[in-house]
Formats: sequence, C-alpha cells, structure tokens
Amino acid sequence: MTTPTKPVTSGSLLIAWQLRDKNVLIVGGGEVAAGRLEIVLGADARVTLIAPSEDLHKTIREIVDTNDRVTYHDRLFEGPEDLVGVDMALTAIDDVEESRRICEMARTRHIPINCADIPPSCDFYFGSQIRRGPLQILVSTDGNGPKIAHLIRRRIENVLPDDVEQTVLNVGRLRAKLRKRAPGVGGMLGKRRMGWMIKVSTQWSLEELAALDDLMMEKLLDEGWEKNAVPNDQAQALAASNA
Amino acid sequence: MTTPTKPVTSGSLLIAWQLRDKNVLIVGGGEVAAGRLEIVLGADARVTLIAPSEDLHKTIREIVDTNDRVTYHDRLFEGPEDLVGVDMALTAIDDVEESRRICEMARTRHIPINCADIPPSCDFYFGSQIRRGPLQILVSTDGNGPKIAHLIRRRIENVLPDDVEQTVLNVGRLRAKLRKRAPGVGGMLGKRRMGWMIKVSTQWSLEELAALDDLMMEKLLDEGWEKNAVPNDQAQALAASNA
Repeated sequence: MTTPTKPVTSGSLLIAWQLRDKNVLIVGGGEVAAGRLEIVLGADARVTLIAPSEDLHKTIREIVDTNDRVTYHDRLFEGPEDLVGVDMALTAIDDVEESRRICEMARTRHIPINCADIPPSCDFYFGSQIRRGPLQILVSTDGNGPKIAHLIRRRIENVLPDDVEQTVLNVGRLRAKLRKRAPGVGGMLGKRRMGWMIKVSTQWSLEELAALDDLMMEKLLDEGWEKNAVPNDQAQALAASNA
Repeated sequence: MTTPTKPVTSGSLLIAWQLRDKNVLIVGGGEVAAGRLEIVLGADARVTLIAPSEDLHKTIREIVDTNDRVTYHDRLFEGPEDLVGVDMALTAIDDVEESRRICEMARTRHIPINCADIPPSCDFYFGSQIRRGPLQILVSTDGNGPKIAHLIRRRIENVLPDDVEQTVLNVGRLRAKLRKRAPGVGGMLGKRRMGWMIKVSTQWSLEELAALDDLMMEKLLDEGWEKNAVPNDQAQALAASNA
C-alpha cells in the first residue's frame, strides 16, 4: 500500500466573475480558443482575439464575422501593448514558452490570466460548466481529473428539470413584481419581502415555479403577499383567486 | 400581461480562482465576514482581517486564535496602505459608503473585490456553493434569487453519491499512479494515458470508483493498462486478477 497522492492544491475559490463590457484578450485561434470565446461572450464581455488567420477555427471565423463585440487581429501576439486596457487575458496556443511569456506580462500588470494547458501559470480554471439561461453551474475537481468533473456534471444535468431556466427567470420576475408593489430598500419591509419570497420558493416545487405566467404571478401576489400568506401550491393559489 | 423583466446581467464567467498562498484582505467582522473567511481559507489563502474586536463574530475569533494563516487587526480600515500586497479584497461591513470607497481604492489598484450587499461594486459573486473535499460546485442564478440557487444546490446535493469525495480523490490517485508507470508529457503516450483514464471513468460508476483502494488500483493497472484493456467493472477486474 502506498500513501494517497496529495492533490496539487486543496481547493479553489469558486466565483461568478462579472465580465459585462469588460475587455478580454484571447491569444490563439484553435478549438480551445473557440470554446473560450463562446464562454466569455456568454458573460457579455468585449473580446479582442489575436491569431493568424491561416489556422483560424471555423467557429471563431463565424463569430468574428457576425459579432460586433469581437475585434479580430490577423497576427501573432506582439508584446505589452497588446495588454493595454485588457481586464482579463486567455492564451490557447501551442507555444508553451510564448504562453508563459504572455502570462508573466499579464501578471506584472495585475491582469487575471488563464493559459490553456499550463495549470501553474493560471490565476483561474474553467472546470466543467452547465448553462441554462441565467442558471450557471461550475463543477471543479481541483485537478483530480477533468473526465470525472464531466461525469458529475452529467449527473447534475440529469437531475435538473427541463424547464429549470424558466424557474429561475420566473423567480426573478416575481421578485421584481414584488419590489414594484412594495418598493424601498432594507428595513422591515425588505425583510418581509425576503421572507415571503423564501416561503414561495421553498413551498412550491421548481416545476410549479416554472409554470407561472404573468397573470398567475399577479394572482399569487394578490392572494399571497397582500394577505400575508403563501398558498401551498399553484392549484391552491388559482382556486383561491377564482373563488 | 407585462413584458418579462430583463435580468440585471445576462451571465457571469464561472471560474475556479487560485488563492493558494495569495493575500486576501477581509474588512468586517460579522457573520458574512465569518463565512467569507472560511471560504477563502478553504482555498488555501493567507488572510488579513480588519475589524474592531467589540463586534467580532464568534467563528472569526476562534479562527483568529488558532489559524496562523490569518492576521488580525483590531481596528477599522484605514486607507490605501491596507491594500498594499493584497491580491483580493472582500468587504462585509454595514457602512455602504465606506464599502464603496474601499471598492474604488481596490479597483484603481486592479485588486479584485467583492463588496457584500453592493452587487454593482463587485468584480465577482460567490453564489451558492457545495464542497466535498476536492469536489467543488458553484450554482449561480445571475441575480434572479439567492433562494432559488439554494434550492437547486439542495437538489444537486441529493443526487451526489455520499462517497463522491472519495471518487474524485481516487481518480486523481489512479491518474498519478498511471503517470508513474508511464511517465512523460504529451505525445502518443500522453494520448493513450488520457484515453485509458477516460474509459475507466466512463465505464465504471462513481460508486465503483469510490470503492477502489490502492491494491485494487495496482490490479486495475496490471490487468487494464498493461494489457491495453479496461475491465467492465470492479468485479471483473478483481476476478481477472485472481484467475
């Protein structure tokens, strides 16, 4: 028997980074770069992509041609001037030495960087991801095996209701409607609002929440919020409003 | 019927941030600060916590007394000098104006910051988290409702095998053992290693992988890797090795 191998690190900080209108630099034009491009565009970033056009991945070419949030330069990375105004940098090139060089430049400028295939040079990793509209899930195994992260991700996907995206959107809409009915920040009202939302979210199933439409939401607010109650389920809420 | 409310942003970039031996500043000493302290220590950070001792949360007091990775200052945040050498900053104080001021100072210094309760000031959010040893899962609903993130998290927790932590650790150990038997970076051997690990991880259930011990791993490598095969399951691997 041998001693269990110690993992490289014992944990990461999992966070939802805000990229809206931030400038992301991607160096590289292959398959990995294409995946990175899609994922950062999904977080509303503005992207500058630097890669010679000879080897540009089909997906990148399509996005560059149609998405005005992407600026494309048909050339190699040139130097520090390519990092001016950059909020986050990603490299996905075969040249390990060049990737390390870019990493060092970014680090001295406090620009967070991920270098594909060079874990020790990375400020962050991507892990295995699920996206269903506003719902995002990240699975990280701390370097113990990307495949096992995929398997766990698949198990999670199997347990998410098909309409979970609608559940999340509806809860957001219900909250917004409630804040409109009972406006104001903090205080007793804020607490009552939060308490009521928690009750609805816990008493109703994810599937029931997904089935709410605008009319139902208004009824739920009339019969629930206004009367300081929470109908146990959708059927009860509808019955009450039709009584 | 009204138009659906547009979410605040349409997405975040979910990432596993590397904090090992990085310096994290936490300003605040209440319950939220206590939670932040635990989560960044779980990512192997070094922490400086600034908060007057009068209102220090019990958990923080305990950690400060026992964990030598935490430096505690019994005072209020003073100014830019408190940000020197800081890699990430977190505020969790009731004073919104002071929190915004710290946020601005951090931003001009390119220090990533999260200000509790002031979403627009945050570079990143924490979302709802699951941790089972090296396995970490983040659920983010993009501001549509923290409670719904908790509910989805609970549904995920229910579907994770009890010993999923062991599954992840074992896959990491098996990979390390394989790299020891067949060392070298990249090339054909690297591809064969990766292919074999993928086969084992997909053909075996998470539960079977969790049950592997060191002896079993060696047998699996003898009967599988060495013979360029993957036993369909644990029972078959054991039977082959005992034949």
